[in-house]
Amino acid sequence: MRMHLALVLGLVSLVLDGVCASDWNILHHKGDGKGLKISLKNYCESWRVNVEVHNLRDFEVVPHECVEYIGKYMTSTQYKVDSERALEQCTLYLSQEFGLTGDGKDAWIFDVDDTLLSNIPYYKKHQYGGEKLNLTSLEGWMRGRKAPALASSLSLYNEIKGKGIKIFLISNRGEHLRDATVDNLFEVGYTGWTGLILRGDEDCGKSAQKYKAEKRQKLVEEGYRIWGIVGDQWSSLLGHPHATRTFKLPNSMYYA
Amino acid sequence: MRMHLALVLGLVSLVLDGVCASDWNILHHKGDGKGLKISLKNYCESWRVNVEVHNLRDFEVVPHECVEYIGKYMTSTQYKVDSERALEQCTLYLSQEFGLTGDGKDAWIFDVDDTLLSNIPYYKKHQYGGEKLNLTSLEGWMRGRKAPALASSLSLYNEIKGKGIKIFLISNRGEHLRDATVDNLFEVGYTGWTGLILRGDEDCGKSAQKYKAEKRQKLVEEGYRIWGIVGDQWSSLLGHPHATRTFKLPNSMYYA
Repeated sequence: MRMHLALVLGLVSLVLDGVCASDWNILHHKGDGKGLKISLKNYCESWRVNVEVHNLRDFEVVPHECVEYIGKYMTSTQYKVDSERALEQCTLYLSQEFGLTGDGKDAWIFDVDDTLLSNIPYYKKHQYGGEKLNLTSLEGWMRGRKAPALASSLSLYNEIKGKGIKIFLISNRGEHLRDATVDNLFEVGYTGWTGLILRGDEDCGKSAQKYKAEKRQKLVEEGYRIWGIVGDQWSSLLGHPHATRTFKLPNSMYYA
Repeated sequence: MRMHLALVLGLVSLVLDGVCASDWNILHHKGDGKGLKISLKNYCESWRVNVEVHNLRDFEVVPHECVEYIGKYMTSTQYKVDSERALEQCTLYLSQEFGLTGDGKDAWIFDVDDTLLSNIPYYKKHQYGGEKLNLTSLEGWMRGRKAPALASSLSLYNEIKGKGIKIFLISNRGEHLRDATVDNLFEVGYTGWTGLILRGDEDCGKSAQKYKAEKRQKLVEEGYRIWGIVGDQWSSLLGHPHATRTFKLPNSMYYA
């Protein structure tokens, strides 16, 4: 999509060329004639990076004019490099002396979806997040056990396991998906975790952040020291108790 | 800089073409022959986005092979659009009903450097962060009172002031720069704040995050409700007490 538009942000007046003005309803029309001329790429990149730094929250769908841009990014070399760079920072952190005790209480937490397993093949068929979530359809994909591993996550996972750190997976998936999730994880090479924590009945209706923080709290009460969390959603990284370090993987297809 | 390199991340082996291997010492050489071929742009963009999401911390200088890339970004339309999009999210947040009381205790916090005032003209002469910080030189620039306003920040500042929210500026600058800072802020249009908080003798040696959190704590003890923080550094946004929302502006020239 090389479609360009003269998009004037002040914040913000627009002159649109090739896209219906209503498509851009995230922006405010002020019509003051000042501001920047920006391209669709500028617009969509700013959407993406503001999702990544958690300025832009609670979106239900990727803006439809950015579906192509987000699809390109999520299947690009840049996405892979961005992910690898994030995980490389974990490796650097792990190479430092930070008090691992070997008493069996050193812990690390991973998200599952789009952290260990990639749902990009699913989202590719659903406009890379441009379609509103259909849970039945998504869970059908999850039951299919066909999600590939994110290669650099698998490598980091094994590195952490090799250090004798206990690995806990805390996922937004529900308990009814346990078998499918275990099978899928095993199939692509993730083994030897200490806990796979899924949403139970008691977690119904809780926000992802609250649910995940409560599960961490339980681990802390069991004596675990949480040295790091790797996740693609801020809801996995924020809240109490904190991990010593957190690592955010890119994902602008959905907000959970 | 269209210099391309075959850069193979596994994590990570490199074949460099046109750049000395030692330039890339952030990366690990594994020589396993697998992985991605990436360009210098891929490499530097992944550096920048990982700084933005706070995966990459405590860097002293921008990697010198990325100085040109960072300079281009910090002076680009994209930087302006990314900043405006972040501040637009503040405007959306402010347009919601979230309990402003009008009792004079609703508060908002801004950083000063590279949030209200732009130091890009200074860093332009110092390799956009590629040179190690020279505090004497930087403070000379600050004393010169010539930093321009970030246009979209000024607009948001005035919007917040117009709502009767008390504005506090919490800056890493020292008290000895108070006159210069006030003059510079006034000169470019920032007026009417309730407090300009600078580092005093008692803050010497404290990390930026600790110093800023302590100042917020003091505000909370005085009865203020901190509805939002806008800053370009994570150290301005993290720690206790939290603000209800935080907004991260882009800045990959330095880490404070």
